[in-house]
Amino acid sequence: MTDEEARIKSIGGGSLLIAWQLKDKRALVIGGGEVASQRVESILTADAFITVLSPENGLHPRTKRFIDLRSDRITYHARPFSGPEELDGADIVLTALDDNDLSRSIVEMCRARRIPVNAADIPDLCDFYFGAQIRDGPLQIMISTNGNGPRMASLIRTKLQKGLSGREGAAITKIGRLRNKLKERAPGVGGQVGKERMEWMTAMCNEWAMEDFTLLDEELMDRVLDEGWEKNKRVPSLNDIEVRRPQIQSWITTFILPALPTATAFVTGALAATLLLTHRPRP
Amino acid sequence: MTDEEARIKSIGGGSLLIAWQLKDKRALVIGGGEVASQRVESILTADAFITVLSPENGLHPRTKRFIDLRSDRITYHARPFSGPEELDGADIVLTALDDNDLSRSIVEMCRARRIPVNAADIPDLCDFYFGAQIRDGPLQIMISTNGNGPRMASLIRTKLQKGLSGREGAAITKIGRLRNKLKERAPGVGGQVGKERMEWMTAMCNEWAMEDFTLLDEELMDRVLDEGWEKNKRVPSLNDIEVRRPQIQSWITTFILPALPTATAFVTGALAATLLLTHRPRP
Repeated sequence: MTDEEARIKSIGGGSLLIAWQLKDKRALVIGGGEVASQRVESILTADAFITVLSPENGLHPRTKRFIDLRSDRITYHARPFSGPEELDGADIVLTALDDNDLSRSIVEMCRARRIPVNAADIPDLCDFYFGAQIRDGPLQIMISTNGNGPRMASLIRTKLQKGLSGREGAAITKIGRLRNKLKERAPGVGGQVGKERMEWMTAMCNEWAMEDFTLLDEELMDRVLDEGWEKNKRVPSLNDIEVRRPQIQSWITTFILPALPTATAFVTGALAATLLLTHRPRP
Repeated sequence: MTDEEARIKSIGGGSLLIAWQLKDKRALVIGGGEVASQRVESILTADAFITVLSPENGLHPRTKRFIDLRSDRITYHARPFSGPEELDGADIVLTALDDNDLSRSIVEMCRARRIPVNAADIPDLCDFYFGAQIRDGPLQIMISTNGNGPRMASLIRTKLQKGLSGREGAAITKIGRLRNKLKERAPGVGGQVGKERMEWMTAMCNEWAMEDFTLLDEELMDRVLDEGWEKNKRVPSLNDIEVRRPQIQSWITTFILPALPTATAFVTGALAATLLLTHRPRP
């Protein structure tokens, strides 16, 4: 058996990680506590309409703030869950209740209606789990430990964040805008032109540093297309479009800061030797 | 308006990232090409049963290999999609077809049955998107650029991987095992004991370096519980359980390697000064 065959035979034990599209869909959140407030935020992120069902004394201040500030998306009913008719029209249901028996019976109602459901703190009842997340504009990252605890997921998130510059989201936004401008110049769906557009955008992404895309404004994007796409679909350099990386900052961070410890050590070594040599008694 | 209020008002424009639980559920993959092979792998990861529908001449070698090696999970029908009855019993449907019209009509049939569906290359028809993924045992990470292209997602994945040691999955596995052992010693669901277990596990995760958990075997886990949980729920050190990090490696990586550039610069500086001072003509 080859390594690849062994690998294929052992695939399993995980989840299917997906980016669920909820734009203008209807989500029902049952409960109003801290966990409910996290659910509300996750679903707001996905542009869904949300109904929150919870007695007023069960509202966490964060949940209340979401309800007050996002009445464009959130409908609040100040009462507990009353029965299966609450589920009418829901595309997704999230319970965040202390009452496990009630959660269980809501999950059963959802199953009968084929509505995806998550019951906080009862993993074996959930159609899906949440994980720790990183969000930066169009970039979303989820970390799942497949039930091995939110604390680990959040430690991994901290690790991952150290590897990001915080400008990836802005770069991705610019790349999306550049692709749209390219589509305006070379319209058409699929076929040869679609393939050429994709190849050129891929080459751009491979050859430019990701952060360099953040330097582009509308005018510079036009210049990238003029000097690149229009010239035999080459990848232009920053020089070609007459733009420079922010000078001082890049100078300091590229050359000076990394050299500082060694430079200091060199000078210290030289001083130490000088002191030793000039102060020792001459023979 | 406070910053937090402004932030809440601007939440949106993303997806709901979730870890879908498909264990022993039924997935239908329509198509057999390269994209279908990726879908099959994603679904195998989640321990679902998979039906693949595709004429034999449409099978990519990778798809064929999955079918051959994973007959425990995959049923293959060598024929094209024949009609709505193919969807009977499916919990999730993935099309990977060149025929966009057929994909569209399959999506409509799934909507009518409330079956979540993804149609490759037709984002506006998808209930969910896939993203670039990192898998390391129980750790799964997904990177979504919300439709801004798989190339960017895979560049971000490369960036993130540099920040990981590759031992996080092993560490999480050990932490899961430790938690189970703790539950055997201090059983009970919820309440005071549940809270204490959670607090102690959280303290362990916060105070130990993640990779140190990979040093634990069954015996050492018992010692962690003896010296930690049983002793007033403190967090034991590696010393307390009489275990050491692999010595040479940790010495070199912790002290010698980081000091090397500055030490070299110090010596070089000292040598340079010595040479200058001892070789210059004396007055």
